[in-house]
Amino acid sequence: MSKPGAVELPVLTTSDTAAPCCPPLTERPLTAEEAERTAAMFKALGDPVRLRLFSLVASHAGGEACVCDISDVGVSQPTVSHHLKKLREAGLLTSERRGTWVYYKVAPSVVAAMSAMLDPR
Amino acid sequence: MSKPGAVELPVLTTSDTAAPCCPPLTERPLTAEEAERTAAMFKALGDPVRLRLFSLVASHAGGEACVCDISDVGVSQPTVSHHLKKLREAGLLTSERRGTWVYYKVAPSVVAAMSAMLDPR
Repeated sequence: MSKPGAVELPVLTTSDTAAPCCPPLTERPLTAEEAERTAAMFKALGDPVRLRLFSLVASHAGGEACVCDISDVGVSQPTVSHHLKKLREAGLLTSERRGTWVYYKVAPSVVAAMSAMLDPR
Repeated sequence: MSKPGAVELPVLTTSDTAAPCCPPLTERPLTAEEAERTAAMFKALGDPVRLRLFSLVASHAGGEACVCDISDVGVSQPTVSHHLKKLREAGLLTSERRGTWVYYKVAPSVVAAMSAMLDPR
């Protein structure tokens, strides 16, 4: 519940289809549907610029970053925004608008689930 | 050392460029070179058919499988071979030819390194 008078910030939530879904890859073959869903998450990290941006957000002070914090990746700010949006759509980042900027942070449960699919340890 | 008279099987090794390389994504931003190298591994799992084939090999009895073990994924045998080769080139599978067939198995150190990059735990 919000306190009366509290400022409501618009929260851009993760797409429902991006939730972690599947057992370790060594446990049993994925179904076509599971593979479809999970491949989209791996694909999001399958681009060098996007992977670099993901690591920039993941390692940024406070665990979040906005486009304004990101430079020196060799692509324009609109391209950075485009890639961050893709990472959000894949469920790997969450985002929140504050004033002019959208701030991104890692969705730890989704990333941990991807990690566990590869290696349950 | 091989015993005298032992049959030498040609071993198709993993490409050198596919070795695990990088710190956890939360530790520091990846360099462009690290991102290039690592994105290729995530990209290999970023296709639904390829991810499904990877899980088929990873979960197959004995930890290895050949094209002859794989059916029911909705693509032709040459397409299966093509995808398995891509997974090998990305370093996620190793392969060994025995007679007519090439057998594939998971490269556990590479897959574990990908997992640890996502979530060092």
